Amino acid sequence: MMSTKPRDPALICLGCWDQMRMPIPIRGPLSVPFRVCGITQSKMNPNICTICERSFRYVKKERHVSVSATILFADIRGYTDMTERMNQMAVSELVSTFQDRCAEAIWAHDGIVNKQMGDGLMAIFNFPIKNERHASAAVAAAVEIQKSCKSALDKLGAGGKDASPNRLGVGVGVHTGTVEIGEFSTFRSDFTAIGSPVNMAARLESEAGAGEIVVSPEVAAEVAEHMMGATTRVATLKGFEEPVTVHVVAAA
Amino acid sequence: MMSTKPRDPALICLGCWDQMRMPIPIRGPLSVPFRVCGITQSKMNPNICTICERSFRYVKKERHVSVSATILFADIRGYTDMTERMNQMAVSELVSTFQDRCAEAIWAHDGIVNKQMGDGLMAIFNFPIKNERHASAAVAAAVEIQKSCKSALDKLGAGGKDASPNRLGVGVGVHTGTVEIGEFSTFRSDFTAIGSPVNMAARLESEAGAGEIVVSPEVAAEVAEHMMGATTRVATLKGFEEPVTVHVVAAA
Repeated sequence: MMSTKPRDPALICLGCWDQMRMPIPIRGPLSVPFRVCGITQSKMNPNICTICERSFRYVKKERHVSVSATILFADIRGYTDMTERMNQMAVSELVSTFQDRCAEAIWAHDGIVNKQMGDGLMAIFNFPIKNERHASAAVAAAVEIQKSCKSALDKLGAGGKDASPNRLGVGVGVHTGTVEIGEFSTFRSDFTAIGSPVNMAARLESEAGAGEIVVSPEVAAEVAEHMMGATTRVATLKGFEEPVTVHVVAAA
Repeated sequence: MMSTKPRDPALICLGCWDQMRMPIPIRGPLSVPFRVCGITQSKMNPNICTICERSFRYVKKERHVSVSATILFADIRGYTDMTERMNQMAVSELVSTFQDRCAEAIWAHDGIVNKQMGDGLMAIFNFPIKNERHASAAVAAAVEIQKSCKSALDKLGAGGKDASPNRLGVGVGVHTGTVEIGEFSTFRSDFTAIGSPVNMAARLESEAGAGEIVVSPEVAAEVAEHMMGATTRVATLKGFEEPVTVHVVAAA
């Protein structure tokens, strides 16, 4: 199993280095003039910079590119139902805790938190920080997410009025393949990923119950080290004609 | 029916003005020193600035606040299925067109594009630009979205290999109520909205078929001017115990 300790803080942007071999200081004294010019750590991952985040076209010289990547979706199971039962403060705390725990796990494995949406998020592995074993990194992050969120959600659930702690849990879906990464609206400059593997990862996440990590056969084939104790089931996923044999990774 | 012409470009940030009565120049000669300091037009709406977007705590002096707002969700019906049939370039063009057309319609009614996620987006009306008739503004934007996307998607659908144009369409959901607006993770500084009305709006969008605008009874009660020709149906929405009588606004 991969290391669970946080990735060491990098002195230069790992994204600009991996994509362009350009050393952009993001920590330490050399980073000061850059920070004055607005080049700071990205919110997607503190080891990449805002050039990676907002200047995709400058980095890649294209509006979008095809990249082999692994996509991870996570969200809180039963969130809507819980929102109806818990007060706004408790819901805020729940969402913050979930987002923070997930981000830590994703960053520890060089992924980026590309999108956050309430109780959900989407992460990309292998862009802009390169990692040949991106499927494995994503599953390691997913295992971390489950462990770290479980303890946090159990604690919050016990404190929430009328909340039944046994219904709190996170669902994670992971798929790998060739995605299109770039800017897909003329007015936003932050990049994202689209394509069939992104949709598949989202559907796998929908398929995941509380505490489950559901991965595609393609991911399972690449992460033998995580497949001990995994179970399989056949799932029909919305928008995909053929049923898929999904693998449920043991998170504990 | 409300005007469909784009909102006039504002010289000062309408968000900072409405929230703090602070005139922050975003266009014209007075905006130059601000732009040098990194205070520019927000990607969420070009009539607000990056202070509104990224410095919620500075603007509101709180981590989050309760606000009466209207939430709009939109996404492309059959997108996953289309992604399987169309090439990546066509999918990219489809997503860009959808996002751009939606944003124009939302901005024309002083809403903000708070989240974009592939073929979907979430918009907020009444924050940070105030508008007492926010439910009406959101439905007017929804009608615009349907009109503007229909012509664009029909065109793209006809060009797409193997794509059946009759399956292309956008679904929109609109709900209004008191939401919690603020920052909900320690590492992101862009604000968002959470709470039951946000979840309900997302579920109404899921309920919407291609070309449909599905609104809650609360929205229907506030936008009489849009309810001519509307139909109703009873829907069971995931996470909500009681079935809801939803109103389907005539978009044409």
